[in-house]
Amino acid sequence: MAVVVKLSNTSDSNELSALDALRDLCAKDMARVNKLIIDNMESKVPLIPQLAGHLIAAGGKRLRPLLTLASAGICNYRGQSHISLATAVEFIHTATLLHDDVVDDSDLRRGRDTANAVWGNQSSVLVGDFLFSRAFRLMVQSDSIRVLDILANASAIIAEGEVAQLTTANNTDTEEDSYLNVISSKTAALFAAACQIGAVIAERPNHEEAALYQYGLNLGIAFQLVDDYLDYGAPDNRLGKDVGDDFREGKITLPVIIAFRRGNSKEQEFWRRTLESLNQNEDDFNYAQKLLNEHSALSETQVRARGYTETARAALNVFPQGPHKKALEDVVDFCVDRSH
Amino acid sequence: MAVVVKLSNTSDSNELSALDALRDLCAKDMARVNKLIIDNMESKVPLIPQLAGHLIAAGGKRLRPLLTLASAGICNYRGQSHISLATAVEFIHTATLLHDDVVDDSDLRRGRDTANAVWGNQSSVLVGDFLFSRAFRLMVQSDSIRVLDILANASAIIAEGEVAQLTTANNTDTEEDSYLNVISSKTAALFAAACQIGAVIAERPNHEEAALYQYGLNLGIAFQLVDDYLDYGAPDNRLGKDVGDDFREGKITLPVIIAFRRGNSKEQEFWRRTLESLNQNEDDFNYAQKLLNEHSALSETQVRARGYTETARAALNVFPQGPHKKALEDVVDFCVDRSH
Repeated sequence: MAVVVKLSNTSDSNELSALDALRDLCAKDMARVNKLIIDNMESKVPLIPQLAGHLIAAGGKRLRPLLTLASAGICNYRGQSHISLATAVEFIHTATLLHDDVVDDSDLRRGRDTANAVWGNQSSVLVGDFLFSRAFRLMVQSDSIRVLDILANASAIIAEGEVAQLTTANNTDTEEDSYLNVISSKTAALFAAACQIGAVIAERPNHEEAALYQYGLNLGIAFQLVDDYLDYGAPDNRLGKDVGDDFREGKITLPVIIAFRRGNSKEQEFWRRTLESLNQNEDDFNYAQKLLNEHSALSETQVRARGYTETARAALNVFPQGPHKKALEDVVDFCVDRSH
Repeated sequence: MAVVVKLSNTSDSNELSALDALRDLCAKDMARVNKLIIDNMESKVPLIPQLAGHLIAAGGKRLRPLLTLASAGICNYRGQSHISLATAVEFIHTATLLHDDVVDDSDLRRGRDTANAVWGNQSSVLVGDFLFSRAFRLMVQSDSIRVLDILANASAIIAEGEVAQLTTANNTDTEEDSYLNVISSKTAALFAAACQIGAVIAERPNHEEAALYQYGLNLGIAFQLVDDYLDYGAPDNRLGKDVGDDFREGKITLPVIIAFRRGNSKEQEFWRRTLESLNQNEDDFNYAQKLLNEHSALSETQVRARGYTETARAALNVFPQGPHKKALEDVVDFCVDRSH
C-alpha cells in the first residue's frame, strides 16, 4: 500500500497555479478533447468504457494532451487536427499505464485501485490494446502521414524502453547511461512526440519542429527524474504522495544509482538485499532515505533534472514571446517544483 | 499440456497442396515479406528480437499476409505497398497471439513453449506492444490514410472481440449469436481487413473492395469454426493437433453451445462442472467428445463452416478467372479440409 500524504494548501495552490496558465489558455480545446476521450472509450462491450473510465476518471494532469494543444498554439495552428491528436496522445499514455500496471503488478495508481487489481490482468491487457488501436484511429483523422509516422515511432520506442527496463530491473549494477536511455524512451519519447506534432500539423519550418521536439524530450526526462526523487520524499524534505513505491518494487532509479556508486561495500550489500533480492524489512525504507541523503543522491538528481529543464526552456527561444510560450515555460517550472 | 498427434503423410501433403498454388504464386513477394519481418523485429534491446523471433520462427501458415498479397494480385496491383502491408498484418497477428497467450495463460502454441512460458508475461505484453507499434510504422509506409483507417479499425475490433470473449468465457449460457459476434471480431476482422486493403491500394472500385472484405470475413469465421471443432478431434474422426486445449481452458465454442442446448439436464450439469467450474477429471474429455458426437455438434459446426466458406467463394465472383482467383478459392478448400 502506498503512503498517501496530504500536501499543505500553500504547496498545492502554488503547483496548481503553475499549470493554470496552460489550462486556461487551452480550456476550450481541452473541453473538446475530454468529450472526444469519452466518445472514443465507447464500445458495445460494457467492460471497455468501465475499465478505461476508471483510469481516465481518476484524473491525472492531462499534461501530454495539454502539451500538444499548446505546441499547436505556439505555432499559430488554425485547423482542427490538434483535438484528435491530443486525444490520441492521452490514449497512448493511458494504454501504456494499463500495461505498466500489469507488468509491475501494481495495486494502486493515482491513489486508487489499479484497473488490473479490480478487473484482472487479462482485461487490462486487452483494454490497453483497444485504447491503443483507438489512438491510431484518431491519428488517422489528422490526415497527416508524418504525424502518424512520428507517433507510431514514439510508441515503438516506448515499448522498447519498457522492455529495456525489464532487463535493468532489480540490477544495482545499472549504469547512469543505460538508465537515462530507458527514461528517454519510456517517458520522454511521448512528451517529445506530443510537442513535435503541434509544429507538424501547423506546417512550421524544421527548426521549430526540432525545437518543440527538444523541449518535450528534455521536459520528459526531467519529469521522470523528479518522479524518481519524489518517490523517496524529495531532497528538501517536501513530502510527495505515494512515497516508497519504487523502493518496494526494487526499481533502480537515478538516486539509487548515485548512492550505490558512492556507497561502501556494506551499503552496497544493503541495496542488493533490498532491491535485487527484494528482501526488505520495516526499517529499510527509512535507512534507504538516510543513505540517499548522506550521499546527496536526491539533491544531485534534482540538479540533473534542472539541467534538463533549462535545456527544455532554452529550446523555446526560437519562438517569439506570447501566452503559449509563457504557458510552456510555466510547465517547466511545474515539472521541477511539483511535489507529486 | 497439449496432445500432439502426428498426422498421416497423405493428409499432410493434401493440405500442403491446397495452399501450394497460393504460396507459389506469392513466393517472390513472400520472400520480401519474410525479410521485412526480420528487419522490423530488430531492436537495440536484445530481448525483443529473441522473443518475437521465437514465435515467428515457430512458423504458422503466414495465411494472413498471403491473403494480402493475393488480394493485391487479384486486383492487378503494380506498386510495392503490399509488401509492407502484408508484414504489418502478420505483426498485428503476432502481437495478438502474444497477448492472447498472456490472457489465456497458455504454455504451448504451435507445439512449442509459448513466449510467456519462457520469458514471462511482462515481456510478452511489452514485446506485443512493440510489434503492434512497428505494424503501424509499416502501414504508414503505404502512404494511404484509408489503409491506416481500415487496419486501425480492425485492431480495435479485435481487442473489442477479445474483451467480449472474456465476458462469455466459462459461461455455458452463451448464445450462438454472441459467439458468432466474438469470432467475427477476434478472428475474422483481420482476415477481412487483410483482403480488403489489397483492393484499396490497387484503387479498385467499391464493389471489388467490398467483395474482398466479404471473402475475408466469411473465410475468417469459417476458419475459427474449423479450429473449434478440430479442438475436439474433428467430426469425421480425423485427428487434429493439440486436441483438447479449449476444453481444458473452459472455452465456450460453437460445438459446446450446440451440445449444451440439446443436452438433458444431467449433460448440462456435466458442461457446467467441466467448463464453468473447471472441475475436470481424466475421463471428462472423452465423455465431452461422446456428447458432441451424439448431438451431431461437431458435424453441425462443420456444416456452418461450409456455409461461410461458400459465401466467401461466391464473393470472388466479381473477379475474372485467373491464377490469383484460383489460389484464393484453394484457400477456401484448405480452410475446411485442414486437420490442424
